[in-house]
Amino acid sequence: MKKISQLTPKEIRALVRKGKWNRPTAGLAMGYAQANLVILPEKYAFDFLLFCQRNPKPCPLLEVLEPGKFRTEFLASDADIRTDIPRYNVYRKGKLEAIVKEIGRFWKTGLVTFLLGCSFSFEEALLRSKIPVRHIEEKKNVPMYITRIPCKSAGIFHGPLVVTMRPIAPVNIIRAIQITSRYASVHGAPVHIGDPSAIGIRDLQKPDFGDPVTIKEGETPVFWACGVTPQAIVMETKPDLCITHAPGHMFITDVLNEELAVS
Amino acid sequence: MKKISQLTPKEIRALVRKGKWNRPTAGLAMGYAQANLVILPEKYAFDFLLFCQRNPKPCPLLEVLEPGKFRTEFLASDADIRTDIPRYNVYRKGKLEAIVKEIGRFWKTGLVTFLLGCSFSFEEALLRSKIPVRHIEEKKNVPMYITRIPCKSAGIFHGPLVVTMRPIAPVNIIRAIQITSRYASVHGAPVHIGDPSAIGIRDLQKPDFGDPVTIKEGETPVFWACGVTPQAIVMETKPDLCITHAPGHMFITDVLNEELAVS
Repeated sequence: MKKISQLTPKEIRALVRKGKWNRPTAGLAMGYAQANLVILPEKYAFDFLLFCQRNPKPCPLLEVLEPGKFRTEFLASDADIRTDIPRYNVYRKGKLEAIVKEIGRFWKTGLVTFLLGCSFSFEEALLRSKIPVRHIEEKKNVPMYITRIPCKSAGIFHGPLVVTMRPIAPVNIIRAIQITSRYASVHGAPVHIGDPSAIGIRDLQKPDFGDPVTIKEGETPVFWACGVTPQAIVMETKPDLCITHAPGHMFITDVLNEELAVS
Repeated sequence: MKKISQLTPKEIRALVRKGKWNRPTAGLAMGYAQANLVILPEKYAFDFLLFCQRNPKPCPLLEVLEPGKFRTEFLASDADIRTDIPRYNVYRKGKLEAIVKEIGRFWKTGLVTFLLGCSFSFEEALLRSKIPVRHIEEKKNVPMYITRIPCKSAGIFHGPLVVTMRPIAPVNIIRAIQITSRYASVHGAPVHIGDPSAIGIRDLQKPDFGDPVTIKEGETPVFWACGVTPQAIVMETKPDLCITHAPGHMFITDVLNEELAVS
């Protein structure tokens, strides 16, 4: 039997659908994009779509399904969004109600599915260019910080930008900016480099989410917009129902990271 | 008194607002982006926003206002979308009902304004790089063609891609692709080069809209997605009400074309 790391996206989704893989997806189907999931009732859909349009760096839309639709067209041709994600979080009025392996029983007409790009895509591009990614080296979750940079609000949705931080050696900073700039649909170029306090971060060793990582002598902290932003903002509005992927348990697509890159 | 071509965007919008300029805007406020306008009742807004998200080349969103809002925030800080466009087309159920200089009497709660990028921005970039643009040389409207490339449909909106064509000399083709690729929010890279029949165009001398232009020996026709696409598609769905700019009578923004370019 093949190792999970050797399986295609389609094979992994089939395993997930049968309930045989409910662990994080980092390192699986290397080369293929993974996506963040947000599912909302139709009454919130215009505001949230507008929020993503106005904040493309934290909210890079890869695919939006029409109300009630659970099959993707662009990201995969045979996927079912109700079963093909290893673990889902179900929130009611902003409170986590359940962590489940499939969401068939929560599904109803009028739910709108948003799939958003994920930084796994540009991290792979950094590694391919031999730029080390510290939290991967240290086998940790990426450190995330709530900044004092406001997102552009849209309807009921408003709140601060959440960023990830990766310490980069001076020799690699320019190249890291160039490489990630190519991946606009998966967070793209950094939003800030250098002084954390300039964007409202007090202590890099105390991230709001994820784990602190080592910052070596001479390295510069580089900050990218984070896919936690839309989830955090949606939660704050306390919608009747919101379903997301559980952190790290992403939707694995058939689209290559390279297909998402610009020239 | 200054010539109109020397005025700033703000000064031109003030003239337009007073009813003192109701002619086409090509050549005005050079360097600044101009925008296409589509105004729709709220019930169509999610579908149309999703259509734009799925078809970013023909429908590059620069700004979307929330229901009932008529003041832009990103494109200009002091503009009123009801008065600052030189000429509007008002459609009811897909039929042109009026051509007007301001739309105050049609305005109502729940109208949603979409402002989309326009090819004037990348044409200026081509000219700056000394790449001739034939319809400008010949003082004509750009030739536009309905292709057999389908747009990705969204809700009630579906239909074919409309393209513009500019004949480009072989020595300039690669550079023209590079330059326009930088302007993703104003139609971006071409969608096709060469054989018109490959995308369903029978006769370049018989455009569906605009004027035919001279194609010189050795030149290649290069096709870009066209902002007429969303208007044509909206008209086909015959919404109760739809207000657009009159062709060529655009919204002049305070945003520089260069601000819309990627690295």
